[in-house]
Amino acid sequence: MRKVRTFSNDKELVSQRRDHIVKVATSLIAKKGYNRINTSELATALGMSTGGLYHYIGSKEDILYLIINFTSDLTSQVLEKFSAYLKDVTPIVAIIESVRIYLETIDNYRDFHNFLNHVMLSLSINDRKIIYQAESRVVEYFENLLSSGVEKGEFEIQDVKIVAHNIIAIAHTWANRGWYLKRYYTLERYIKEEIAILLQQITKLSPKSIEKTIARYYSQDSKTSELLLEDA
Amino acid sequence: MRKVRTFSNDKELVSQRRDHIVKVATSLIAKKGYNRINTSELATALGMSTGGLYHYIGSKEDILYLIINFTSDLTSQVLEKFSAYLKDVTPIVAIIESVRIYLETIDNYRDFHNFLNHVMLSLSINDRKIIYQAESRVVEYFENLLSSGVEKGEFEIQDVKIVAHNIIAIAHTWANRGWYLKRYYTLERYIKEEIAILLQQITKLSPKSIEKTIARYYSQDSKTSELLLEDA
Repeated sequence: MRKVRTFSNDKELVSQRRDHIVKVATSLIAKKGYNRINTSELATALGMSTGGLYHYIGSKEDILYLIINFTSDLTSQVLEKFSAYLKDVTPIVAIIESVRIYLETIDNYRDFHNFLNHVMLSLSINDRKIIYQAESRVVEYFENLLSSGVEKGEFEIQDVKIVAHNIIAIAHTWANRGWYLKRYYTLERYIKEEIAILLQQITKLSPKSIEKTIARYYSQDSKTSELLLEDA
Repeated sequence: MRKVRTFSNDKELVSQRRDHIVKVATSLIAKKGYNRINTSELATALGMSTGGLYHYIGSKEDILYLIINFTSDLTSQVLEKFSAYLKDVTPIVAIIESVRIYLETIDNYRDFHNFLNHVMLSLSINDRKIIYQAESRVVEYFENLLSSGVEKGEFEIQDVKIVAHNIIAIAHTWANRGWYLKRYYTLERYIKEEIAILLQQITKLSPKSIEKTIARYYSQDSKTSELLLEDA
């Protein structure tokens, strides 16, 4: 990982601020293009002084490194959420919950994902590697989850790799083609419908019992805790 | 549509040249960013003189308009291909052929699609409308195709809209995340696998007979003509 300049000592705070800076920076880039932004403009958008921002970013180039390095952090965050919520649940509940968490995360970092996909080919090999590795960890997570469902007899899948890819595709499409999809779907409806046709694809459940399973999942106040030990 | 300057009279030739200019321009933009390119650089990449390019593009802004206007042309091209090849075929053959044509087209115009998705939110309302309408025509085509398959009893689909969206998503993902997918798939294999799991989702065919159907489709020398009146 490249080192991004920082003078601050409180690690938790630095991490939160970086998250915030990445979001605001990628939103600014989405509006104006990377070449047209500068650090003082970013500071204004963040409600910080240029001096304040200087604790996190020393130059314009650092913005790019901050965004690239953030891919690993975000992936770790997502995978931690998965593993925290998904101990001892059935594969069906695990896939519903994982798809929901993943889509909500992508939605939360839309501009970030669009920017990365857009600049990917113009990055150095080392920078690409950071992004590629972060992506691979997510794809592998879904591959393993699908395979374990097949082993337990809940899923029927010929090729788990392409199904895992398509889960990622559906999520990235929400970021990438939000301008189109948002005319027809709210995020929640999009997630529900995508989960429904995914379950139709990988299980033998009837459309009715898929509907019931999803409705039950969403009717829980605290989605995960209640369902942790329950059969789908 | 905005008018892009042209002094040339041969319509067919102008159309071919524009197609070529759009491809080279979007490839150049993918590498350097829109803000960093200029018309003389584009002329060099096209192997034309700046004066020659001036027949098609009067200013840098015209590059953007050319690309935006090209969305309608490309959609019309694709829809014409669909309708030329797909008279009197069964819904299953029609969906295989359409997904293949659509994915091959997106592959052929990867940089173009990435650029449009990337700049979409920073365009004027009128420019967005042009792109939105072109996209809608493709989504509607797939919706109608899926619905007609449901009516004929070949497909079983709860919600044709989301299935149509996902076909588009899978194609755009090939453009957008090609940097990832190409490590695992060739275009042809990606198309075959996506068709296989789509058919698994929307038909009652067994995995074996899906495999056979796709193999038969691909074994034809001239894919469409031979299959035009044949049952899948």
